[in-house]
Amino acid sequence: MAENDSLTEFLTVAIDAAMQAGEVIRKAFYQTKHVEHKGSVDLVTETDKACEDLIFNHLKQHFPSHKFVGEETTAAEGVTQLTDEPTWIVDPVDGTVNFVHGFPFVCVSIGLTIKKVPVVGVVYNPIMNEFFTAIDGNGAFLNGDPIKVSSKSELVTCLLMTEDVPQHDKATLDAATNRINSLLYKVRSIRMGGSCALGLCGVACGRIDLFYLSGFGGPWYETAAVIIKEAGGVVFDPSGNEFDITAQRVAASNPLVKDAFVEALQQSA
Amino acid sequence: MAENDSLTEFLTVAIDAAMQAGEVIRKAFYQTKHVEHKGSVDLVTETDKACEDLIFNHLKQHFPSHKFVGEETTAAEGVTQLTDEPTWIVDPVDGTVNFVHGFPFVCVSIGLTIKKVPVVGVVYNPIMNEFFTAIDGNGAFLNGDPIKVSSKSELVTCLLMTEDVPQHDKATLDAATNRINSLLYKVRSIRMGGSCALGLCGVACGRIDLFYLSGFGGPWYETAAVIIKEAGGVVFDPSGNEFDITAQRVAASNPLVKDAFVEALQQSA
Repeated sequence: MAENDSLTEFLTVAIDAAMQAGEVIRKAFYQTKHVEHKGSVDLVTETDKACEDLIFNHLKQHFPSHKFVGEETTAAEGVTQLTDEPTWIVDPVDGTVNFVHGFPFVCVSIGLTIKKVPVVGVVYNPIMNEFFTAIDGNGAFLNGDPIKVSSKSELVTCLLMTEDVPQHDKATLDAATNRINSLLYKVRSIRMGGSCALGLCGVACGRIDLFYLSGFGGPWYETAAVIIKEAGGVVFDPSGNEFDITAQRVAASNPLVKDAFVEALQQSA
Repeated sequence: MAENDSLTEFLTVAIDAAMQAGEVIRKAFYQTKHVEHKGSVDLVTETDKACEDLIFNHLKQHFPSHKFVGEETTAAEGVTQLTDEPTWIVDPVDGTVNFVHGFPFVCVSIGLTIKKVPVVGVVYNPIMNEFFTAIDGNGAFLNGDPIKVSSKSELVTCLLMTEDVPQHDKATLDAATNRINSLLYKVRSIRMGGSCALGLCGVACGRIDLFYLSGFGGPWYETAAVIIKEAGGVVFDPSGNEFDITAQRVAASNPLVKDAFVEALQQSA
């Protein structure tokens, strides 16, 4: 009970932080933005930095003893190893290319792990006003309404989502499009939205049946992972093994279609 | 002046029809839907039929002497040849696979051609509350605010959108993914949204720089075409030739990047 109370408090503070950041994102979304390059197609914006500061400050004010991991921190220090301490994982603007172009799939992602287990997740798209939330053991919600993964059990009826790879060298691009080609024979159709967190939340609310991504990622997938788990779904490595936050790969689906999806992913690798 | 008055009246009636259809779509979007197959991945829903009836009835009530072309009509009778008569072109639910899966890129599309020239266009996404409108010579608007295409002139800074092909046979799929592979070397990133009309409107409002589609389509592209033209953009055949409503192909961009885009499309064919 005490622990549940704490989790509810953690969620409430995370929602507050996400709403503040969302307000900054929404204002900037419609303005000209000054961008700098972080790799060939990955753009970091002033908003990204402003939101990370804002969210960290808000969380630290309430939970000064907690640990904090941000996208900028990870980019600067390499892959992050989580400890058992309560650790906030923040991706201030997921979908930065979308943000720069004004494409409305952008979100704030704030999650909390305790003893390495993700226990609170908030993903907020301030442009479409979609607030995905979850607490470990208490279900997942979109704008306060309970959500669940789809019940599709056959690939041929499934809507697949994936993302463009950030590296556009020949080997990476060929592997990515060959994989898409192989999967398209087996699924109904494909979507590419440009935000991993929103793709994963799409699985959580059943508008997407299958999601996978290779080539980038980090600890912030944990945030969407708790939302998917609480919506009845599964997050795993595209190989079928357990999801590994250091592996830069992720896949998700409902449990019924997981085995068929993993087999299709292996055949497409 | 008289003609502009008429166009304004045509637009007003089209907006009314789109709002009524949008209400039907929005309600059905969150419910279980009864679907029937129209090919392997193309689903027609009851909503599709209900909306087409509703829109046609509304337009016919106001303009009994006009001609009418619908998606169902075209599917039943094959490719439509436009006449010089005022002709309403209606796609009641664009993005039917999205609709069935609950993916929020769905829209109503209503356009009017006079002497084969598209003069009024309305594209309405009732899930995201985005209303794209245009009258020939009077600019394009999103929810009442003027919109314009992007000013990108180099492919490498461009966000490309395309759509999954409805035919998943080997020749078609391989050609589609090879084309994506070839284009990805040249652009910043790719999105696939599942609604052609919304993809074209994405070009009109500058959130997408480049759009192309092969393998399906019809006269309803004219609706988005007037919106793009009024937003300062260009709609053309992927070969670079003039857009042909019978060709089942379309491309769009701003004028600055068109030549580079056509060259890239030709190299990818």
